[in-house]
Amino acid sequence: MRRVSIGLLGLGQIGSEVYRVISRKRSLFQKRYDVRFDITKILVKNTKKKRFKSLDSKLLTSKPSDVLKDPSIDLVIELVGGVALAKKFVLEAFRNGKDVVTANKALLAEEGESIYKEAKKLGRQIFFEASVGGGIPVIKSLREGLAANHIHSILGIINGTSNYILTQMSQHGVDFDVALQEAQAKGYAELDPTFDIEGVDAAHKIAILARYSFEQKIPFKSVDCEGIKHISQHDIDFAKRFGYSIKLLAIAKKQKDGIEARVQPTLLPNNHILAKVDGSFNAILFEGDEVGEVLLYGKGAGPEPTASAVLSDVIDWAKGIRSNLPRTSKSQVKVKSISSILSRYYLRFSVIDKPGTLSYISGILGKHNVSISNVIQTEKKSGTTVPLILLTYKGHEADIRTAVKKIDSNRSVIREKTRVIRIES
Amino acid sequence: MRRVSIGLLGLGQIGSEVYRVISRKRSLFQKRYDVRFDITKILVKNTKKKRFKSLDSKLLTSKPSDVLKDPSIDLVIELVGGVALAKKFVLEAFRNGKDVVTANKALLAEEGESIYKEAKKLGRQIFFEASVGGGIPVIKSLREGLAANHIHSILGIINGTSNYILTQMSQHGVDFDVALQEAQAKGYAELDPTFDIEGVDAAHKIAILARYSFEQKIPFKSVDCEGIKHISQHDIDFAKRFGYSIKLLAIAKKQKDGIEARVQPTLLPNNHILAKVDGSFNAILFEGDEVGEVLLYGKGAGPEPTASAVLSDVIDWAKGIRSNLPRTSKSQVKVKSISSILSRYYLRFSVIDKPGTLSYISGILGKHNVSISNVIQTEKKSGTTVPLILLTYKGHEADIRTAVKKIDSNRSVIREKTRVIRIES
Repeated sequence: MRRVSIGLLGLGQIGSEVYRVISRKRSLFQKRYDVRFDITKILVKNTKKKRFKSLDSKLLTSKPSDVLKDPSIDLVIELVGGVALAKKFVLEAFRNGKDVVTANKALLAEEGESIYKEAKKLGRQIFFEASVGGGIPVIKSLREGLAANHIHSILGIINGTSNYILTQMSQHGVDFDVALQEAQAKGYAELDPTFDIEGVDAAHKIAILARYSFEQKIPFKSVDCEGIKHISQHDIDFAKRFGYSIKLLAIAKKQKDGIEARVQPTLLPNNHILAKVDGSFNAILFEGDEVGEVLLYGKGAGPEPTASAVLSDVIDWAKGIRSNLPRTSKSQVKVKSISSILSRYYLRFSVIDKPGTLSYISGILGKHNVSISNVIQTEKKSGTTVPLILLTYKGHEADIRTAVKKIDSNRSVIREKTRVIRIES
Repeated sequence: MRRVSIGLLGLGQIGSEVYRVISRKRSLFQKRYDVRFDITKILVKNTKKKRFKSLDSKLLTSKPSDVLKDPSIDLVIELVGGVALAKKFVLEAFRNGKDVVTANKALLAEEGESIYKEAKKLGRQIFFEASVGGGIPVIKSLREGLAANHIHSILGIINGTSNYILTQMSQHGVDFDVALQEAQAKGYAELDPTFDIEGVDAAHKIAILARYSFEQKIPFKSVDCEGIKHISQHDIDFAKRFGYSIKLLAIAKKQKDGIEARVQPTLLPNNHILAKVDGSFNAILFEGDEVGEVLLYGKGAGPEPTASAVLSDVIDWAKGIRSNLPRTSKSQVKVKSISSILSRYYLRFSVIDKPGTLSYISGILGKHNVSISNVIQTEKKSGTTVPLILLTYKGHEADIRTAVKKIDSNRSVIREKTRVIRIES
């Protein structure tokens, strides 16, 4: 039987759960995989802090080198989070001949290239199943399960907090602020929810998936990122009237003329499988050239699902399954700027109701090559502000933006900034 | 670069697609995985038959030993289907030192134990991703992605034909026979659709999944199997009125007192994620102790998705990832007989409408410890037959059967055999 000595960096919620599962299932893993796992050192900030009962406090240290330079440690699990320090630790682990398992999406999205480069140079491996989609085997599926495919597109609901908030708004008619507070009370959202609701967390994850799937570098700043905080109950209601749900979608598509990579609130037709993913669940829809559509769905966060993913990497490592660094194929295409994409759009104008408004707005859209597919204009009280909702056929983002900017600048027609939400079908 | 010489047994739709993908993507696989795959022999019944253009007909043979005994062949892909002959070929391959990739669910469900035993004895491997769920990485997820979990339950929509038929019946109000003809016209259903519509195909697949997940032998005959051919438009309509969809579900659950393994038409609440899986799509919902619910969804059949799965196995094999034979843990529990399960039920009685009927029926159910949760009794015309639909709380299958048998035997009350459909929540 093989013995694997593991060094743990960080003992927060996920680290604690990883520790507990390894303790609780040690004999199961021995039987199943013929490997005995032992966590032999744990890096924490404060070794005196009171923690959970089953913890062997002799394992704690506040000196990184106690883990990173210990020659008896075979594998390092990085769960400190953040970018700069985590990067330092991972590179240090590589240089000391240790492979790494991490759950750190920010690290890989922002500093992945230098990490992969160093791993390649030193012949080291880095596993990161837990960085996307909690316990859902997303990376494993890309790396192995769909190994015979070219992946053309990825659509993901990969931020549970945002999906919980949008689901609450849609199902219970509550406002964004109320839904956010609920999410915080339930532990789905952080005290500072900025990364979640502004789409940064989802952007980190889609950058990792696109990097792996499309076999080319995806500079994190090239991922256009828009969160859900401007989505109102109005938008959700009007979307419903057209047969759509609003979801925070992470999108990556490889096309001949470039790669699209972005996070955005999106109108999805109600019969789309992703429109049915509610609450704090995550789902990732891959489209491969052989397999067609494959959807993976589950809890995208939380200590137990994330520990499940971390341990699947640890077990893979012990079985000799290699992490395979993301490849960089020779045929590279540029990541498109957001202004160059083609999409359908939902436009909610706040118009001052008077004769000729619809004609004026549709005229400007028409001049910019934007055709209208659906219209809702609600009951009119002359002289007041009313919402005018248009769905468009496919148009260029740049055209839409120019047209809407022009319309919005006419203060005798428009009362508030027009809400623009892309439609995915 | 490694070279892998592959022998193909069978050149039907799936075999042909495997051949074409290996030809078309040879250089991609070389670049990605540093392996060159060559199909060097193909067993067919008729070497003279005209096939697709890109085929090198010199590779064809009608002698099994040309593939199985060729020492230059490293790996055998078994796609002949059926049980007896396939078993013979697989064992022969093992004995000649060759590992096997197969898509054959009947073989593994019915003869898996002797195959696994022989593989173990000879130190050989057998990969079978393509046997369940087409291109969806189901086996891979169980074997590796969810490796840290105890799997408690599996619910699957794993027969695309049945799901297509039920979806057509539900969405377009067509009858079973019409929907079946459509499925045949679209190529979803075989000319002889018995295995699909009677649930045998789904039973094969759930037997394989339960065997792997629960780490114990599942005799195929212990999997209770009921198909969809008795489902009528009435049942679908009444289910809708209660907020349910009817799906052909494959179910496997591990409980303290035994394993449940069965295939059945099932009422699923509309907000259940599996209720949203429509058309010919498949989906498998695992429940693991760490990860919670994980759903995998995609095309469950067809040459391209199935070839994608076969090739993922071939690539795994070439990378040195082992197939891991299903384990047999020491703590075995019996597979429960269907009469011992607990479930909620939908009961559709065809009653002769007269006073006291509801009281009579509910009285007998009550005496057998079956409590009623919902009732629909439609408009009455005295003396004619009307449907009476009851949903029950959880009750014992044996009690339900006894009660319904007793009710059905009273020909002064009941006109037709009562329809009993289980409810999963």
